[in-house]
Amino acid sequence: MTKEDFTNCYERIRPYIHKTPILTSSLLNKLVGTELYFKCENFQRAGAYKIRGATNAIMQLSKAEQQNGVVTHSSGNFAQALSLAAKNLNIKAYIVMPSNSPQVKKNAVLEYGGKIIECEPNIKARQDQADQIANDTGATFIHPSNNLDVIIGQSTAGLELLVEHSNLDFIMCPIGGGGLISGTALAATYFSDHCKVFGGEPIEADDAYRSLISGKIETNITTNTIADGLRTQLGSHNFPIIKEHVKQIIRVTETEIIEAMQLIWERMKIIIEPSSAVAFAAVLKEKETFKNKKIGIIISGGNVDVNNLPF
Amino acid sequence: MTKEDFTNCYERIRPYIHKTPILTSSLLNKLVGTELYFKCENFQRAGAYKIRGATNAIMQLSKAEQQNGVVTHSSGNFAQALSLAAKNLNIKAYIVMPSNSPQVKKNAVLEYGGKIIECEPNIKARQDQADQIANDTGATFIHPSNNLDVIIGQSTAGLELLVEHSNLDFIMCPIGGGGLISGTALAATYFSDHCKVFGGEPIEADDAYRSLISGKIETNITTNTIADGLRTQLGSHNFPIIKEHVKQIIRVTETEIIEAMQLIWERMKIIIEPSSAVAFAAVLKEKETFKNKKIGIIISGGNVDVNNLPF
Repeated sequence: MTKEDFTNCYERIRPYIHKTPILTSSLLNKLVGTELYFKCENFQRAGAYKIRGATNAIMQLSKAEQQNGVVTHSSGNFAQALSLAAKNLNIKAYIVMPSNSPQVKKNAVLEYGGKIIECEPNIKARQDQADQIANDTGATFIHPSNNLDVIIGQSTAGLELLVEHSNLDFIMCPIGGGGLISGTALAATYFSDHCKVFGGEPIEADDAYRSLISGKIETNITTNTIADGLRTQLGSHNFPIIKEHVKQIIRVTETEIIEAMQLIWERMKIIIEPSSAVAFAAVLKEKETFKNKKIGIIISGGNVDVNNLPF
Repeated sequence: MTKEDFTNCYERIRPYIHKTPILTSSLLNKLVGTELYFKCENFQRAGAYKIRGATNAIMQLSKAEQQNGVVTHSSGNFAQALSLAAKNLNIKAYIVMPSNSPQVKKNAVLEYGGKIIECEPNIKARQDQADQIANDTGATFIHPSNNLDVIIGQSTAGLELLVEHSNLDFIMCPIGGGGLISGTALAATYFSDHCKVFGGEPIEADDAYRSLISGKIETNITTNTIADGLRTQLGSHNFPIIKEHVKQIIRVTETEIIEAMQLIWERMKIIIEPSSAVAFAAVLKEKETFKNKKIGIIISGGNVDVNNLPF
């Protein structure tokens, strides 16, 4: 990869994404003893950074491939993102969702024009169903995180952050499948000479933390976390990038996630999802590490069921 | 008053307030069939537009008056705003609060350096206590809304909105004591040639609606509304301005307020308080009036107890 792969990607997807605002809070700066720059992907189209990778992955397909559409399996933000990205580019999106997905998530996919195919609620059934659709329709399978074009697309949030604030010492990302953090780590590698990328991960789904220690991909022992976007397994495309470019992963408890989420809601008056709070919770937990530094925090999304909050 | 009173006020208070962002949502535009411009005073210092009026009122006092401090009675956003404005200007603020005010509201006042004096929870006791303090300390009483310097201060939110979007057809404000809407109506009068200011008011606290009809100040029959900032009685300084410059008041039900609030939370990912939702609820209720128009909506504040939400 070269720097140009990233700037080309950015130019390519720019008409289809929002350049999201970067917010600051003097109150939170005081509380943490740092300068915090929140990159607000909760204000992104479809409510999360995922539209960046989804759009890039589709645009990198050939015209012939595009005509047959795309397929993914996701019950979360990538389902909505791929549906919207496909709609924007005038192609079909097949979304495999577990039959027990909440109706509110199905509605969001339908609203963006995705075609839902239900499957049994387990990982094997999801992949089998997606493979079947790819076979039947010729649609290209796009993994929500373990796909290099998706990763490069996700790098553009960090890229925007570094273009506006070139002197950041750290960027903190949440880690689920690893698409966001590996994209961000690549952005920091190519667009900063000293910015380090750190990850925040729930203790209850700490596959990336343990993988960095063991040097090989570990699987989640539990996924019993409120950060529903981070229950995903780390992927083979992401892990080598993370191993090379991510300096440290900080794990946080469920209580720390909820407290960090409430703090941002109450102080910044913005709605962020629990997965996004994980990155800020990690900064709060290791305040000393970050003292007097400039830290970018990627607020990954804002898709929350307000009828079912943890506080 | 002249146009200069408003631009002078703006220059005066500018170092102490945020110029808040104006947000748009293509989704909500589509839903309503208009162009909506949300002036986000929920991102204002102390979480509401009130700091504008509080700051201006203090700065218009003489040096001698300032030395004795200021006093108000409020259990809401003005209590925090006056405390912070006073702190910023290095003077004392005495805040009379009903003894049954929630601890979270008292804490916010204390955090901004206000000195709390508790009183019996009724209107007479509040005013008596405030008068007593003014007597004892020489502090100047500043009413949260029924004060011309406060009103001129509150006009600056509408002023900022009209400077950025000079072609607005309407601005919609919530109405409680009337400080915000009378300030906004004056801003529209001096800074636009055609922008009309409308008010949104809960049916459960519709004193302003009935006052406009009868031509004299009516009192609230109930204040049984979730929009806690709008339970206040319309004042003698506000009413003449409203009578002259506000074109219409639209009343909304409690259900309409809660639905409008949830819509903004879910779609715009910002936290607004119920009082702010009243203005958007009024636009939703009278969609036909606003079809294809450009409407500014003042999101008055974001101070909500997230542990106690209506949805």
